[in-house]
Amino acid sequence: MAQTEFIMILWLIGVLAEAMTGALAAGRKQMDLFGVVIIGLVTAVGGGTLRDMLLGNYPLIWIANWHYLIAIAAASLLTVLIAPLMRYLGRLFLAIDALGLAVFSITGAQKTLMLGFSPVVAVAMGVVTGVFGGVLRDILCNEIPLIFRREFYALASALTASAYVLLAMSGFGGWPSLLGCLLLGFGLRMCAIRYRWSMPTFNYQSDPHAH
Amino acid sequence: MAQTEFIMILWLIGVLAEAMTGALAAGRKQMDLFGVVIIGLVTAVGGGTLRDMLLGNYPLIWIANWHYLIAIAAASLLTVLIAPLMRYLGRLFLAIDALGLAVFSITGAQKTLMLGFSPVVAVAMGVVTGVFGGVLRDILCNEIPLIFRREFYALASALTASAYVLLAMSGFGGWPSLLGCLLLGFGLRMCAIRYRWSMPTFNYQSDPHAH
Amino acid sequence: MAQTEFIMILWLIGVLAEAMTGALAAGRKQMDLFGVVIIGLVTAVGGGTLRDMLLGNYPLIWIANWHYLIAIAAASLLTVLIAPLMRYLGRLFLAIDALGLAVFSITGAQKTLMLGFSPVVAVAMGVVTGVFGGVLRDILCNEIPLIFRREFYALASALTASAYVLLAMSGFGGWPSLLGCLLLGFGLRMCAIRYRWSMPTFNYQSDPHAH
Repeated sequence: MAQTEFIMILWLIGVLAEAMTGALAAGRKQMDLFGVVIIGLVTAVGGGTLRDMLLGNYPLIWIANWHYLIAIAAASLLTVLIAPLMRYLGRLFLAIDALGLAVFSITGAQKTLMLGFSPVVAVAMGVVTGVFGGVLRDILCNEIPLIFRREFYALASALTASAYVLLAMSGFGGWPSLLGCLLLGFGLRMCAIRYRWSMPTFNYQSDPHAH
Repeated sequence: MAQTEFIMILWLIGVLAEAMTGALAAGRKQMDLFGVVIIGLVTAVGGGTLRDMLLGNYPLIWIANWHYLIAIAAASLLTVLIAPLMRYLGRLFLAIDALGLAVFSITGAQKTLMLGFSPVVAVAMGVVTGVFGGVLRDILCNEIPLIFRREFYALASALTASAYVLLAMSGFGGWPSLLGCLLLGFGLRMCAIRYRWSMPTFNYQSDPHAH
Repeated sequence: MAQTEFIMILWLIGVLAEAMTGALAAGRKQMDLFGVVIIGLVTAVGGGTLRDMLLGNYPLIWIANWHYLIAIAAASLLTVLIAPLMRYLGRLFLAIDALGLAVFSITGAQKTLMLGFSPVVAVAMGVVTGVFGGVLRDILCNEIPLIFRREFYALASALTASAYVLLAMSGFGGWPSLLGCLLLGFGLRMCAIRYRWSMPTFNYQSDPHAH
């Protein structure tokens, strides 16, 4: 199996997993089935869409390949059917989500480098691809984006993208680097969940405007 | 009257009606007059703007024709003046909003087809054009987007856009198709309001992250 | 010192001040340090980014010059360190924010004119550049955007951008116009804070949909 095909399969797993987190979030807000599909779509392709709009890189992936739209909509509706199983699948789900985060962070950075942008921008776009689908989901559900509070989520994305960019810039862009970064991202996130790693928070309650 | 002119007039009616729903939403949040104008603008052109940004189709309509900006700002401010009448105009207003939804869904799909994108993307862009102005309005007003809960709103948009795309792909892009789809979209929405049609909702209250 | 360099320095001051308001808003929501950096970045470059995406003007400034990303991230983290001082720096902070608003409104309008767009669009883009960083910050923090309620904020931006565009269109694009508009924008905002100027608000509590 070629490297691009391997990445592609992982990317699809990540996209479908993200669609399912979107559908569940819509269910928590008791949305109708159309809302479920829209939130599923936004969550699944929102990060990559925002990245490509920021880079001016057209056409967008899901516009050039509309089959993804159908697959993601189907995954969102399937989630409604299997929702009762979800409470037993919680751990599996978290693992798939962690895999998706790692894949998105790597592919986002990889694509940005291939378009000729600088390494710092590639890392930033890895994070945008990895986490902004979830950010848009939370905005549409009217919640403070979870990733700004959740254990190590965005940081795992940034570290994974940074590792990939550093290796790629050093000439190590092949299979071992790819697998290593996947393991790094997946491992960081799973450890963060398991051991409740968290970033220090900034608590500022005095309002400089209320003077 | 040519077909494009007829569509144009309906489009303008829809845009101004959407600006008014935006202004009223701003009034519910007690915003100042500048906020009223901004929410009016975003509601009126937000859907079409998002569509063109997703398609990479520049320049945007209201940037090429700034007269629309002035007309929409004026409609927003006019809404403030005639707000006391609004409670008597509720039904008229719902009818104009339903017409706008149908027009936006059709023109969004039509434009996307004319730019050479696939039928599935055209339907998706019909929905984006039809409903995302309202979604952006609700986000700016810090509410859960209404369309994800409201009777048949986004689905009416999707069915209208689908009907138009199917007819256009089959070679029936002329007046009868256009009028038929307008009637379909308008009728679906009005029936949905009258008979309180609604989509099944997805209610999911167990959190897979709370394991 | 050349005019462009002077503008550049003011722009940087404005960007860093906006990053700090973003970091403080993140602190009010007790976000983690990564959230602080992201909110700081979005607040600082969000307005200009939205402007360039609306105009289709690529590459974005911070993508072409990634050094800004690093500077803004550093300013956001620095804010966490000096937050205890903020209650003593409230007035200085408001003054820097007012300066930033004036600079963003002028540079946003200037850039839009230079790209060949119409004067009305230039004023609109001055406002987008001036206030939408704060709007995006408030959306990510799940609050109703402050500028739609706050004393004279968006209007000061619109008046400043309008004055600059009028002068530039009349052939007065040089130093005196630039300084005059800076003073106008800064003065309007400071007076609005000092004398509690406010726009009339629109209060509409009857729901036309609840018929």
